[in-house]
Amino acid sequence: MTACRVAQVATAGGSFEIVQREVPRPGPGHVRVAVDACGICHSDALFVAAALPGVRFPLVPGHEIAGRVEAIGEGTPDIWHVGDRVAVGWFGGSCGHCTPCRRGDFVVCENLKVPGWAYDGGYAEAVIVPADALARIPDALAAVDAAPLACAGVTTYNGLRRSSARPGDLVAVLGIGGLGHLGVRFAVAMGFETVAIARGPAKADLAKRLGAHHYVDSTGGTAVADALQALGGARAVLATAANSDAITATVDGLSPRGELVVIGADAAPLGISPNQLLMNGRVVRGHPSGTAQDIQDTMAFSALHQIRPMTETVPLEGVAEAYEKMLSGAARFRMVLAPR
Amino acid sequence: MTACRVAQVATAGGSFEIVQREVPRPGPGHVRVAVDACGICHSDALFVAAALPGVRFPLVPGHEIAGRVEAIGEGTPDIWHVGDRVAVGWFGGSCGHCTPCRRGDFVVCENLKVPGWAYDGGYAEAVIVPADALARIPDALAAVDAAPLACAGVTTYNGLRRSSARPGDLVAVLGIGGLGHLGVRFAVAMGFETVAIARGPAKADLAKRLGAHHYVDSTGGTAVADALQALGGARAVLATAANSDAITATVDGLSPRGELVVIGADAAPLGISPNQLLMNGRVVRGHPSGTAQDIQDTMAFSALHQIRPMTETVPLEGVAEAYEKMLSGAARFRMVLAPR
Amino acid sequence: MTACRVAQVATAGGSFEIVQREVPRPGPGHVRVAVDACGICHSDALFVAAALPGVRFPLVPGHEIAGRVEAIGEGTPDIWHVGDRVAVGWFGGSCGHCTPCRRGDFVVCENLKVPGWAYDGGYAEAVIVPADALARIPDALAAVDAAPLACAGVTTYNGLRRSSARPGDLVAVLGIGGLGHLGVRFAVAMGFETVAIARGPAKADLAKRLGAHHYVDSTGGTAVADALQALGGARAVLATAANSDAITATVDGLSPRGELVVIGADAAPLGISPNQLLMNGRVVRGHPSGTAQDIQDTMAFSALHQIRPMTETVPLEGVAEAYEKMLSGAARFRMVLAPR
Amino acid sequence: MTACRVAQVATAGGSFEIVQREVPRPGPGHVRVAVDACGICHSDALFVAAALPGVRFPLVPGHEIAGRVEAIGEGTPDIWHVGDRVAVGWFGGSCGHCTPCRRGDFVVCENLKVPGWAYDGGYAEAVIVPADALARIPDALAAVDAAPLACAGVTTYNGLRRSSARPGDLVAVLGIGGLGHLGVRFAVAMGFETVAIARGPAKADLAKRLGAHHYVDSTGGTAVADALQALGGARAVLATAANSDAITATVDGLSPRGELVVIGADAAPLGISPNQLLMNGRVVRGHPSGTAQDIQDTMAFSALHQIRPMTETVPLEGVAEAYEKMLSGAARFRMVLAPR
Repeated sequence: MTACRVAQVATAGGSFEIVQREVPRPGPGHVRVAVDACGICHSDALFVAAALPGVRFPLVPGHEIAGRVEAIGEGTPDIWHVGDRVAVGWFGGSCGHCTPCRRGDFVVCENLKVPGWAYDGGYAEAVIVPADALARIPDALAAVDAAPLACAGVTTYNGLRRSSARPGDLVAVLGIGGLGHLGVRFAVAMGFETVAIARGPAKADLAKRLGAHHYVDSTGGTAVADALQALGGARAVLATAANSDAITATVDGLSPRGELVVIGADAAPLGISPNQLLMNGRVVRGHPSGTAQDIQDTMAFSALHQIRPMTETVPLEGVAEAYEKMLSGAARFRMVLAPR
Repeated sequence: MTACRVAQVATAGGSFEIVQREVPRPGPGHVRVAVDACGICHSDALFVAAALPGVRFPLVPGHEIAGRVEAIGEGTPDIWHVGDRVAVGWFGGSCGHCTPCRRGDFVVCENLKVPGWAYDGGYAEAVIVPADALARIPDALAAVDAAPLACAGVTTYNGLRRSSARPGDLVAVLGIGGLGHLGVRFAVAMGFETVAIARGPAKADLAKRLGAHHYVDSTGGTAVADALQALGGARAVLATAANSDAITATVDGLSPRGELVVIGADAAPLGISPNQLLMNGRVVRGHPSGTAQDIQDTMAFSALHQIRPMTETVPLEGVAEAYEKMLSGAARFRMVLAPR
Repeated sequence: MTACRVAQVATAGGSFEIVQREVPRPGPGHVRVAVDACGICHSDALFVAAALPGVRFPLVPGHEIAGRVEAIGEGTPDIWHVGDRVAVGWFGGSCGHCTPCRRGDFVVCENLKVPGWAYDGGYAEAVIVPADALARIPDALAAVDAAPLACAGVTTYNGLRRSSARPGDLVAVLGIGGLGHLGVRFAVAMGFETVAIARGPAKADLAKRLGAHHYVDSTGGTAVADALQALGGARAVLATAANSDAITATVDGLSPRGELVVIGADAAPLGISPNQLLMNGRVVRGHPSGTAQDIQDTMAFSALHQIRPMTETVPLEGVAEAYEKMLSGAARFRMVLAPR
Repeated sequence: MTACRVAQVATAGGSFEIVQREVPRPGPGHVRVAVDACGICHSDALFVAAALPGVRFPLVPGHEIAGRVEAIGEGTPDIWHVGDRVAVGWFGGSCGHCTPCRRGDFVVCENLKVPGWAYDGGYAEAVIVPADALARIPDALAAVDAAPLACAGVTTYNGLRRSSARPGDLVAVLGIGGLGHLGVRFAVAMGFETVAIARGPAKADLAKRLGAHHYVDSTGGTAVADALQALGGARAVLATAANSDAITATVDGLSPRGELVVIGADAAPLGISPNQLLMNGRVVRGHPSGTAQDIQDTMAFSALHQIRPMTETVPLEGVAEAYEKMLSGAARFRMVLAPR
């Protein structure tokens, strides 16, 4: 048993409080990770608001975790040792025996464990996680850089590399926030002719600094689709905006066989008709984050291409303010807790 | 010059009349085809109603053509000879120089020529078509069987073979009409565990006769999705119904990575949200018919597996009644004109 | 502890003897399977001859196992219960923590456990296997039918469904033995235009009974390639023959983009030159069997399409004779032990 | 008719002479291109030596052509105008009516026309080519840069983007010559972790300057495979060396599912056995250059990422010396004729 501080929410919609907890020794197949950094992700708000089934309180959110292995439960594969630098993301472990798991497609596991949902997350000095959730952090990456790569990073990196676009193709990233600013950098490093799409003219400079070859201001009705078509039509759009209307507005900007990769969650329907998809053979694809190995790939790619998330770091005590800043959209671009 | 009878509509929304026309000698790269059979497709109604841009009157519809080469224009590849049995479908020729054509993806040609839209179609004793629109009919197929394969057939065959489903996977066909009854037969011959979906209990027998392993009655709210999930979840749904609501109702019946292949046209938006696609990595794909070679593949496959469309044949004079029967949904399952 | 009889080989190249063994209770994550049937596979000879690294004696071969769960170790996923009918194939469990495993590609696990190599195999009344090696047998399949599907079956089924050939394409199966006779039946059920290739004219009848649309006698120099080209060129060749020369002889029979799927093991080099591959964009692909889930898919497919291996069944005591018959090529087509 | 100088070889194995020729007006579907630059490719030697079927003398080689449209034959698509800057590569036009062409896969056309083989090539002040062979040169590229991209460039770019490797994967380029030096730069710009492989330690510096992350000296028996495995195993090897033994030596350096993309021609057999491919699911893929549109993509990618071939330019009169320099391997890295 070890004592550690955690930032928890006592009831649905409640506010954060810092409390002391006992952290037990990790059980079979689990490890305890000392948390050096934990990103604050927009989807944490879904748990705080109890908007997803099975959320329990008191709740410790946090699924963008970077730290060090502190203790190892029995039966854990011996690829992991105390002191190893590791990250854990949305993929907090899979069951191993549902059909998708048996097909090796762990990220769509029917019993997927998400940190801060299935078990206490990374707004804490320590977490206990299943070993299959661990991704190794390369030396070149600081914890504060690694943490957002475990969710915002892997989701955009994976969404792009698994799309049907090939180097040289026109690829657009919708939204330049916590996910999108990484998406633009990844797209550029993958050799795509890269378009950044955001609201208003002010973000054009940012887009350029991130390496985007083009900037499209999405303000106005058909602006996005027309602008993309003027550039030749996008082979892929990575939709990081959690906004069905904004996503829908890009569809007519796709080239023939173009693919809309949806990673931004929204319960509202997309307003896309069969006629918009049929003649041009267009595709709308939902993309679900990535596994521990995918996170490892993301970090290796980021290290190779010197890509770092743009972050603002606060101590655990700053959680409430940091969370508000994320909620209000004022974060530039990822708030990261540094519990230790 | 040759005289021939055609069934034309004089003005938008008008009714059919049989008139005599002069058919000129085919120009460079074109051939004249004596029409033995021409299917009546639901999309013909879009032309008759002038619901698509560029429709001109008097209009001769018809893009499910089977016949024989009667005359050959200069510069036509010498793979075609007078007397060759040929079919022409929705793909009535491509421009050859737009970007999709230069990529070899003719069916999404920016200047696609559809018979009965870009030029006079097959409700006639003869048509003149570009040579690149020709598909060779195998000996085993009668003209009346070949004609519907050039549109209803290739669209379903191609949509299935290009989906991500693999033999043994659960595949559902939504709708058992002109397209769907072929879709079910193709799916079975491709080794899929095949589900037919239609409204009401009456079609269960038909589904079974077509070889479907399961029948799902789509009447009622979540019936389709629940039924598909009870079978394990569909790896692909081929949506032949031109009805966005019916298509939307199948999405939650897809397995992880499942693919909704949309071939039924509708301008109304699908009511699919990002949340329905994200977690499971689901895909919505628009599928645009097929090229002349695809039609040839479709006919070869049909011959190999003894698949024939179920048709009702009428002479050219019966066009008005046949067209009405198609419109009213009373056709079992494809009305075919036999102009000669 | 339970006693059971096994057929073992005491030293490299030795002959079979039936001995009594104690079978312990299964350890964590393992189950004990009562063996109802076990196929004799050609690769068993590699173990008996100690031709592969790490083979230990006394050796109990057997990796085509069908039986019932008899006892369950702790920590085993509760999808498995005593009495469940299960099969185990070449894929006898993966380590879960090497890079391929972490990518979900278990069948190329760096520490793959093969029954009869990594642990005692199925020439026995009972085996102990890791739970992740288990595939559920559908009710429609008898144990003696399921066993060969766990190796000969899954290898051919998987090799075909993962190839780039699509229904209607010309697909050839090289060899009509233990693997090939299943390959032909699977290819036909997947909707391929199927060619069976074997030596001599005598197998033409067999090929036809298996459903092949064409038969090619491979006797003579360029006979195979020429015959395939006369049929239009093969989009895929499934090479079940463990003979590099026979495999090589098919390459020039591939169509543009055609794929040679190699499943027959041989240490001798293929005699294929860059020039044979380059201009036509041809592909040579090694295909490694399949996972437990793939075996389950294979059995489901076989049940759906009424495909059964052609087998000759002998009691455990008949192992020596059965093994010799397999070795001599006289088996028609799969020798199967029935230990119980 | 226009007079122009060409560099021709009068008989098989002969030497170059500069002669005056009459260039007729382009026929239907053809254009006349004023040649500003023409690369000297190693495969030109196959034509000079009459080592390929159908070579005719006097021969004017040259299939890496960059220039301007000078005259346009009738029936040419109006996307081309006099003065347009265009390139022509190995893909000198396709027949349009063979099965691969009808499938849109022009580069494996059964009647592929290669400049300098099917018709007089670019060692000349002007050439006449079919319009479907034309690729538009972007403003950012000089003719001398564009020319080698039309063959050496497109082959490597296309081979990499069509491989199964994804950004971040380990990709090796075998050979750092005329093709390989571009291959390394393309691989880096596509986001691959890039390995350059060549003989001897001297090329390590060059590899680094081209951006390679690793250099492997291929001297010695198993050096290459071991070195690649030490880096984690290559997801793809782009084999630009026209040497079957050197290609073969890389196979054991592939990761599971790794792909050997062969673009270097050699009639000698690869010494790869089924056993090297089977267990790891490895693939050997022949890759055949690219179409006019692929060349356009290559040039756009090169312009976007500021990639230029390293060339040495000589006037038409210098053809004999330049050709010898290419043959001897002394070219650094691409000899280019500048006929005007």
